[in-house]
Amino acid sequence: MPGQASGTPEPITRLIEHFHRLPGIGPKSAQRLAYHILRSPDQEAQALATAIGDVKSRIQYCSICFNFTESDPCGYCEDEHRDRTVVCVVEEPLDIVAIERTGFRGLYHVLHGILNPMEGRGPDDLRIRELHDRVEVEGLVEVIMAIDPSLEGEATAMYVQRLLGDTGARVTRLARGLPSGADLEYTDDVTLARAFEGRQEIS
Amino acid sequence: MPGQASGTPEPITRLIEHFHRLPGIGPKSAQRLAYHILRSPDQEAQALATAIGDVKSRIQYCSICFNFTESDPCGYCEDEHRDRTVVCVVEEPLDIVAIERTGFRGLYHVLHGILNPMEGRGPDDLRIRELHDRVEVEGLVEVIMAIDPSLEGEATAMYVQRLLGDTGARVTRLARGLPSGADLEYTDDVTLARAFEGRQEIS
Repeated sequence: MPGQASGTPEPITRLIEHFHRLPGIGPKSAQRLAYHILRSPDQEAQALATAIGDVKSRIQYCSICFNFTESDPCGYCEDEHRDRTVVCVVEEPLDIVAIERTGFRGLYHVLHGILNPMEGRGPDDLRIRELHDRVEVEGLVEVIMAIDPSLEGEATAMYVQRLLGDTGARVTRLARGLPSGADLEYTDDVTLARAFEGRQEIS
Repeated sequence: MPGQASGTPEPITRLIEHFHRLPGIGPKSAQRLAYHILRSPDQEAQALATAIGDVKSRIQYCSICFNFTESDPCGYCEDEHRDRTVVCVVEEPLDIVAIERTGFRGLYHVLHGILNPMEGRGPDDLRIRELHDRVEVEGLVEVIMAIDPSLEGEATAMYVQRLLGDTGARVTRLARGLPSGADLEYTDDVTLARAFEGRQEIS
Protein backbone atom coordinates (compact mmCIF):
# COMPACT_ATOMS: atom_id res chain seq x y z
CA MET A 1 0.00 0.00 0.00
CA PRO A 2 1.65 3.22 -1.15
CA GLY A 3 -0.27 5.27 1.44
CA GLN A 4 1.21 3.25 4.24
CA ALA A 5 4.72 3.15 2.76
CA SER A 6 4.72 6.95 2.58
CA GLY A 7 3.50 7.48 6.12
CA THR A 8 5.36 8.40 9.28
CA PRO A 9 7.85 5.66 10.28
CA GLU A 10 6.57 3.22 12.92
CA PRO A 11 9.10 4.13 15.66
CA ILE A 12 8.01 7.78 15.40
CA THR A 13 4.26 7.07 15.51
CA ARG A 14 4.87 4.69 18.41
CA LEU A 15 6.74 7.34 20.38
CA ILE A 16 4.00 9.89 19.59
CA GLU A 17 1.40 7.44 20.91
CA HIS A 18 3.35 6.88 24.12
CA PHE A 19 3.74 10.62 24.73
CA HIS A 20 0.04 11.09 23.98
CA ARG A 21 -0.84 8.66 26.78
CA LEU A 22 0.84 10.92 29.35
CA PRO A 23 -1.46 13.29 31.27
CA GLY A 24 -1.90 16.74 29.73
CA ILE A 25 -0.13 15.81 26.48
CA GLY A 26 -2.45 16.26 23.49
CA PRO A 27 -1.81 14.80 20.03
CA LYS A 28 -0.05 17.98 18.81
CA SER A 29 2.25 18.17 21.85
CA ALA A 30 3.01 14.46 21.54
CA GLN A 31 4.08 15.03 17.93
CA ARG A 32 6.25 17.99 18.89
CA LEU A 33 7.89 16.03 21.71
CA ALA A 34 8.66 13.05 19.45
CA TYR A 35 10.27 15.26 16.80
CA HIS A 36 12.19 17.10 19.49
CA ILE A 37 13.62 13.77 20.67
CA LEU A 38 14.55 12.95 17.08
CA ARG A 39 16.49 16.18 16.73
CA SER A 40 18.11 16.15 20.17
CA PRO A 41 21.57 14.61 20.77
CA ASP A 42 21.64 10.84 21.28
CA GLN A 43 22.94 11.08 24.82
CA GLU A 44 20.19 13.48 25.88
CA ALA A 45 17.46 11.15 24.59
CA GLN A 46 19.23 8.20 26.20
CA ALA A 47 19.41 10.07 29.52
CA LEU A 48 15.63 10.58 29.45
CA ALA A 49 15.03 6.91 28.66
CA THR A 50 17.39 5.91 31.49
CA ALA A 51 15.71 8.32 33.92
CA ILE A 52 12.33 6.71 33.15
CA GLY A 53 13.76 3.25 33.79
CA ASP A 54 15.50 4.41 36.97
CA VAL A 55 12.40 5.75 38.71
CA LYS A 56 10.68 2.45 38.07
CA SER A 57 13.57 0.28 39.26
CA ARG A 58 14.94 2.39 42.10
CA ILE A 59 11.84 3.99 43.63
CA GLN A 60 9.51 2.14 45.99
CA TYR A 61 6.80 2.96 48.52
CA CYS A 62 7.91 3.84 52.05
CA SER A 63 6.50 1.06 54.25
CA ILE A 64 5.51 3.62 56.91
CA CYS A 65 4.06 6.67 55.12
CA PHE A 66 3.68 5.28 51.55
CA ASN A 67 5.53 8.21 50.01
CA PHE A 68 7.82 7.35 47.08
CA THR A 69 11.36 6.73 48.29
CA GLU A 70 14.69 5.27 47.24
CA SER A 71 15.41 3.77 50.68
CA ASP A 72 12.80 2.37 53.06
CA PRO A 73 11.83 4.01 55.41
CA CYS A 74 11.89 7.35 53.58
CA GLY A 75 13.81 10.44 54.59
CA TYR A 76 10.75 12.08 56.18
CA CYS A 77 10.01 9.07 58.38
CA GLU A 78 13.66 8.72 59.41
CA ASP A 79 14.29 12.42 60.08
CA GLU A 80 14.75 12.83 63.85
CA HIS A 81 14.43 16.62 63.61
CA ARG A 82 10.76 16.46 62.71
CA ASP A 83 7.78 16.79 65.03
CA ARG A 84 6.82 13.15 65.46
CA THR A 85 3.46 13.87 67.08
CA VAL A 86 1.77 15.41 64.03
CA VAL A 87 1.00 13.64 60.76
CA CYS A 88 -0.16 15.43 57.63
CA VAL A 89 -2.38 13.21 55.47
CA VAL A 90 -2.19 13.88 51.71
CA GLU A 91 -3.73 12.40 48.62
CA GLU A 92 -0.54 12.11 46.58
CA PRO A 93 3.25 12.24 47.11
CA LEU A 94 3.38 15.43 45.01
CA ASP A 95 1.32 17.23 47.67
CA ILE A 96 4.21 16.77 50.11
CA VAL A 97 6.46 18.99 47.99
CA ALA A 98 3.96 21.85 48.26
CA ILE A 99 3.41 21.36 52.00
CA GLU A 100 7.16 21.27 52.70
CA ARG A 101 7.38 24.73 51.15
CA THR A 102 5.02 26.09 53.82
CA GLY A 103 7.57 25.17 56.50
CA PHE A 104 5.60 22.23 57.94
CA ARG A 105 8.03 19.79 59.55
CA GLY A 106 5.93 16.95 60.89
CA LEU A 107 5.30 13.47 59.50
CA TYR A 108 3.34 12.54 56.40
CA HIS A 109 0.95 9.84 55.30
CA VAL A 110 0.05 9.34 51.64
CA LEU A 111 -3.40 7.89 50.94
CA HIS A 112 -2.78 7.45 47.20
CA GLY A 113 -6.20 8.68 46.29
CA ILE A 114 -9.41 9.82 47.94
CA LEU A 115 -12.73 8.06 48.40
CA ASN A 116 -14.74 8.12 45.19
CA PRO A 117 -17.73 5.77 44.99
CA MET A 118 -18.42 6.87 41.40
CA GLU A 119 -14.99 5.55 40.36
CA GLY A 120 -15.35 2.56 42.68
CA ARG A 121 -12.62 3.67 45.06
CA GLY A 122 -13.42 2.69 48.64
CA PRO A 123 -11.45 2.78 51.92
CA ASP A 124 -9.69 -0.51 51.12
CA ASP A 125 -8.17 1.02 47.97
CA LEU A 126 -6.46 3.72 50.03
CA ARG A 127 -3.87 3.59 52.83
CA ILE A 128 -6.48 4.47 55.48
CA ARG A 129 -6.19 1.29 57.59
CA GLU A 130 -2.41 1.82 57.73
CA LEU A 131 -3.01 5.40 58.91
CA HIS A 132 -5.15 4.13 61.77
CA ASP A 133 -2.42 1.68 62.80
CA ARG A 134 0.22 4.40 62.71
CA VAL A 135 -1.82 6.77 64.87
CA GLU A 136 -2.16 4.03 67.47
CA VAL A 137 1.37 2.61 67.34
CA GLU A 138 3.21 5.92 67.02
CA GLY A 139 0.91 7.70 69.48
CA LEU A 140 0.23 10.58 67.12
CA VAL A 141 -1.52 13.58 68.70
CA GLU A 142 -2.81 15.40 65.63
CA VAL A 143 -3.84 14.22 62.17
CA ILE A 144 -4.01 17.10 59.67
CA MET A 145 -6.16 16.21 56.67
CA ALA A 146 -4.50 18.18 53.82
CA ILE A 147 -6.93 16.97 51.19
CA ASP A 148 -8.41 18.96 48.28
CA PRO A 149 -11.61 20.72 49.44
CA SER A 150 -13.78 18.83 46.95
CA LEU A 151 -16.88 16.78 47.69
CA GLU A 152 -14.82 13.57 47.64
CA GLY A 153 -12.07 15.21 49.68
CA GLU A 154 -14.55 16.25 52.38
CA ALA A 155 -16.03 12.76 52.46
CA THR A 156 -12.56 11.27 52.84
CA ALA A 157 -11.71 13.65 55.69
CA MET A 158 -14.98 12.83 57.46
CA TYR A 159 -14.41 9.10 57.04
CA VAL A 160 -10.89 9.30 58.48
CA GLN A 161 -12.12 11.48 61.34
CA ARG A 162 -14.75 8.90 62.30
CA LEU A 163 -12.35 5.98 61.87
CA LEU A 164 -9.76 7.59 64.15
CA GLY A 165 -12.36 8.30 66.84
CA ASP A 166 -11.07 5.44 69.00
CA THR A 167 -7.45 6.64 68.93
CA GLY A 168 -7.98 9.91 70.78
CA ALA A 169 -6.00 11.82 68.14
CA ARG A 170 -7.22 15.26 67.10
CA VAL A 171 -8.24 15.26 63.43
CA THR A 172 -8.01 18.70 61.78
CA ARG A 173 -8.31 20.00 58.25
CA LEU A 174 -6.75 22.92 56.39
CA ALA A 175 -8.63 26.21 56.60
CA ARG A 176 -10.94 27.11 53.75
CA GLY A 177 -11.24 30.75 52.71
CA LEU A 178 -10.13 33.34 50.20
CA PRO A 179 -6.91 32.43 48.41
CA SER A 180 -4.11 35.00 48.69
CA GLY A 181 -4.58 37.76 46.11
CA ALA A 182 -8.15 36.74 45.38
CA ASP A 183 -10.60 39.21 43.90
CA LEU A 184 -13.66 39.10 46.17
CA GLU A 185 -15.95 40.14 43.33
CA TYR A 186 -15.01 37.06 41.32
CA THR A 187 -14.82 34.56 44.16
CA ASP A 188 -17.29 31.68 43.91
CA ASP A 189 -20.13 31.44 46.43
CA VAL A 190 -18.92 28.34 48.24
CA THR A 191 -15.46 29.80 48.85
CA LEU A 192 -16.97 33.06 50.07
CA ALA A 193 -19.40 31.24 52.36
CA ARG A 194 -16.55 29.20 53.84
CA ALA A 195 -14.47 32.34 54.30
CA PHE A 196 -17.37 33.86 56.28
CA GLU A 197 -17.81 30.76 58.42
CA GLY A 198 -14.11 30.70 59.24
CA ARG A 199 -13.72 34.43 59.86
CA GLN A 200 -11.22 35.33 62.55
CA GLU A 201 -10.83 38.26 64.92
CA ILE A 202 -8.23 40.80 63.90
CA SER A 203 -5.83 41.12 66.78
CA MET B 1 21.63 17.28 56.32
CA PRO B 2 18.09 16.44 57.37
CA GLY B 3 16.62 18.78 54.78
CA GLN B 4 18.29 16.88 52.00
CA ALA B 5 17.54 13.47 53.47
CA SER B 6 13.85 14.39 53.54
CA GLY B 7 13.76 15.72 49.99
CA THR B 8 12.50 14.16 46.79
CA PRO B 9 14.56 11.07 45.81
CA GLU B 10 17.26 11.71 43.21
CA PRO B 11 15.80 9.47 40.45
CA ILE B 12 12.53 11.42 40.67
CA THR B 13 14.14 14.89 40.55
CA ARG B 14 16.33 13.70 37.67
CA LEU B 15 13.30 12.52 35.69
CA ILE B 16 11.51 15.80 36.45
CA GLU B 17 14.53 17.72 35.13
CA HIS B 18 14.63 15.68 31.95
CA PHE B 19 10.91 16.22 31.30
CA HIS B 20 11.36 19.92 32.04
CA ARG B 21 13.93 20.15 29.23
CA LEU B 22 11.36 19.09 26.65
CA PRO B 23 9.65 21.87 24.68
CA GLY B 24 6.40 23.17 26.21
CA ILE B 25 6.84 21.24 29.49
CA GLY B 26 6.95 23.62 32.48
CA PRO B 27 8.18 22.65 35.95
CA LYS B 28 4.67 21.73 37.14
CA SER B 29 3.93 19.54 34.11
CA ALA B 30 7.34 17.89 34.46
CA GLN B 31 6.50 17.00 38.06
CA ARG B 32 3.10 15.65 37.08
CA LEU B 33 4.61 13.54 34.28
CA ALA B 34 7.29 12.07 36.57
CA TYR B 35 4.74 11.07 39.21
CA HIS B 36 2.50 9.66 36.51
CA ILE B 37 5.38 7.44 35.35
CA LEU B 38 5.92 6.35 38.96
CA ARG B 39 2.30 5.29 39.28
CA SER B 40 1.98 3.68 35.86
CA PRO B 41 2.61 -0.06 35.30
CA ASP B 42 6.26 -1.05 34.82
CA GLN B 43 5.73 -2.27 31.29
CA GLU B 44 4.08 0.96 30.19
CA ALA B 45 7.01 3.04 31.48
CA GLN B 46 9.45 0.60 29.90
CA ALA B 47 7.61 0.86 26.58
CA LEU B 48 8.03 4.65 26.63
CA ALA B 49 11.75 4.34 27.43
CA THR B 50 12.15 1.81 24.62
CA ALA B 51 10.23 3.99 22.18
CA ILE B 52 12.61 6.87 22.91
CA GLY B 53 15.62 4.64 22.33
CA ASP B 54 14.10 3.22 19.15
CA VAL B 55 13.53 6.52 17.37
CA LYS B 56 17.17 7.41 18.02
CA SER B 57 18.58 4.07 16.86
CA ARG B 58 16.20 3.22 14.02
CA ILE B 59 15.38 6.60 12.47
CA GLN B 60 17.74 8.37 10.08
CA TYR B 61 17.58 11.15 7.51
CA CYS B 62 16.43 10.23 4.01
CA SER B 63 19.46 10.88 1.77
CA ILE B 64 17.19 12.40 -0.91
CA CYS B 65 14.59 14.59 0.86
CA PHE B 66 16.07 14.67 4.42
CA ASN B 67 12.79 13.63 6.00
CA PHE B 68 13.08 11.25 8.97
CA THR B 69 12.84 7.65 7.82
CA GLU B 70 13.44 4.07 8.89
CA SER B 71 14.70 2.96 5.48
CA ASP B 72 16.67 5.12 3.07
CA PRO B 73 15.29 6.42 0.72
CA CYS B 74 12.07 7.20 2.54
CA GLY B 75 8.57 6.06 1.59
CA TYR B 76 7.69 9.37 -0.06
CA CYS B 77 10.79 9.33 -2.28
CA GLU B 78 10.24 5.70 -3.25
CA ASP B 79 6.50 5.94 -3.87
CA GLU B 80 5.97 5.52 -7.62
CA HIS B 81 2.38 6.75 -7.39
CA ARG B 82 3.43 10.31 -6.55
CA ASP B 83 3.81 13.20 -8.94
CA ARG B 84 7.58 13.26 -9.39
CA THR B 85 7.69 16.65 -11.11
CA VAL B 86 6.63 18.72 -8.09
CA VAL B 87 8.54 19.11 -4.82
CA CYS B 88 7.12 20.73 -1.73
CA VAL B 89 9.81 22.40 0.39
CA VAL B 90 9.14 22.45 4.13
CA GLU B 91 10.97 23.66 7.19
CA GLU B 92 10.50 20.52 9.30
CA PRO B 93 9.44 16.88 8.88
CA LEU B 94 6.34 17.57 10.96
CA ASP B 95 5.06 19.96 8.26
CA ILE B 96 4.79 17.00 5.88
CA VAL B 97 2.11 15.39 8.05
CA ALA B 98 -0.06 18.52 7.73
CA ILE B 99 0.52 18.83 3.99
CA GLU B 100 -0.31 15.17 3.37
CA ARG B 101 -3.70 15.84 4.94
CA THR B 102 -4.46 18.38 2.19
CA GLY B 103 -4.20 15.62 -0.41
CA PHE B 104 -0.89 16.78 -1.91
CA ARG B 105 0.87 13.79 -3.46
CA GLY B 106 4.15 15.13 -4.85
CA LEU B 107 7.68 14.93 -3.49
CA TYR B 108 9.07 16.66 -0.42
CA HIS B 109 12.28 18.35 0.61
CA VAL B 110 13.00 19.19 4.25
CA LEU B 111 15.26 22.19 4.85
CA HIS B 112 15.55 21.55 8.61
CA GLY B 113 15.18 25.21 9.47
CA ILE B 114 14.85 28.56 7.73
CA LEU B 115 17.35 31.35 7.19
CA ASN B 116 17.80 33.38 10.35
CA PRO B 117 20.81 35.72 10.48
CA MET B 118 19.93 36.74 14.06
CA GLU B 119 20.38 33.14 15.19
CA GLY B 120 23.36 32.69 12.87
CA ARG B 121 21.59 30.25 10.53
CA GLY B 122 22.73 30.72 6.92
CA PRO B 123 22.14 28.74 3.71
CA ASP B 124 24.93 26.26 4.56
CA ASP B 125 23.09 25.23 7.72
CA LEU B 126 20.04 24.18 5.70
CA ARG B 127 19.55 21.57 2.96
CA ILE B 128 19.31 24.26 0.26
CA ARG B 129 22.30 23.17 -1.83
CA GLU B 130 20.86 19.65 -1.88
CA LEU B 131 17.52 21.05 -3.07
CA HIS B 132 19.25 22.77 -5.98
CA ASP B 133 20.98 19.51 -6.97
CA ARG B 134 17.69 17.61 -6.81
CA VAL B 135 15.87 20.10 -9.02
CA GLU B 136 18.62 19.71 -11.63
CA VAL B 137 19.13 15.96 -11.43
CA GLU B 138 15.47 14.99 -11.05
CA GLY B 139 14.29 17.59 -13.56
CA LEU B 140 11.64 18.98 -11.21
CA VAL B 141 9.16 21.37 -12.82
CA GLU B 142 7.73 23.13 -9.78
CA VAL B 143 9.14 23.91 -6.36
CA ILE B 144 6.40 24.83 -3.85
CA MET B 145 7.79 26.75 -0.89
CA ALA B 146 5.49 25.68 1.98
CA ILE B 147 7.28 27.82 4.54
CA ASP B 148 5.73 29.81 7.41
CA PRO B 149 4.78 33.32 6.19
CA SER B 150 7.16 35.01 8.65
CA LEU B 151 9.91 37.50 7.83
CA GLU B 152 12.52 34.75 7.91
CA GLY B 153 10.25 32.43 5.95
CA GLU B 154 9.80 35.03 3.21
CA ALA B 155 13.57 35.61 3.08
CA THR B 156 14.16 31.88 2.79
CA ALA B 157 11.63 31.56 -0.05
CA MET B 158 13.22 34.52 -1.89
CA TYR B 159 16.69 33.05 -1.45
CA VAL B 160 15.64 29.67 -2.82
CA GLN B 161 13.80 31.31 -5.70
CA ARG B 162 16.95 33.21 -6.74
CA LEU B 163 19.20 30.19 -6.26
CA LEU B 164 17.01 28.02 -8.47
CA GLY B 165 16.93 30.66 -11.21
CA ASP B 166 19.37 28.65 -13.36
CA THR B 167 17.33 25.45 -13.20
CA GLY B 168 14.27 26.70 -15.06
CA ALA B 169 11.96 25.29 -12.36
CA ARG B 170 8.92 27.33 -11.35
CA VAL B 171 9.19 28.40 -7.70
CA THR B 172 5.80 29.05 -6.04
CA ARG B 173 4.63 29.73 -2.55
CA LEU B 174 1.43 28.95 -0.66
CA ALA B 175 -1.33 31.57 -0.89
CA ARG B 176 -1.62 34.09 1.90
CA GLY B 177 -5.07 35.27 2.95
CA LEU B 178 -7.83 34.87 5.48
CA PRO B 179 -7.72 31.57 7.35
CA SER B 180 -10.87 29.46 7.12
CA GLY B 181 -13.43 30.63 9.67
CA ALA B 182 -11.58 33.89 10.33
CA ASP B 183 -13.39 36.89 11.75
CA LEU B 184 -12.57 39.77 9.41
CA GLU B 185 -13.01 42.29 12.22
CA TYR B 186 -10.23 40.70 14.25
CA THR B 187 -7.86 39.84 11.42
CA ASP B 188 -4.47 41.56 11.63
CA ASP B 189 -3.57 44.21 9.05
CA VAL B 190 -0.85 42.24 7.26
CA THR B 191 -3.10 39.22 6.72
CA LEU B 192 -5.91 41.46 5.48
CA ALA B 193 -3.56 43.33 3.13
CA ARG B 194 -2.27 40.02 1.73
CA ALA B 195 -5.84 38.78 1.30
CA PHE B 196 -6.63 41.90 -0.73
CA GLU B 197 -3.53 41.53 -2.89
CA GLY B 198 -4.35 37.92 -3.64
CA ARG B 199 -8.09 38.41 -4.23
CA GLN B 200 -9.59 36.16 -6.88
CA GLU B 201 -12.54 36.42 -9.19
CA ILE B 202 -15.62 34.52 -8.11
CA SER B 203 -16.54 32.17 -10.92
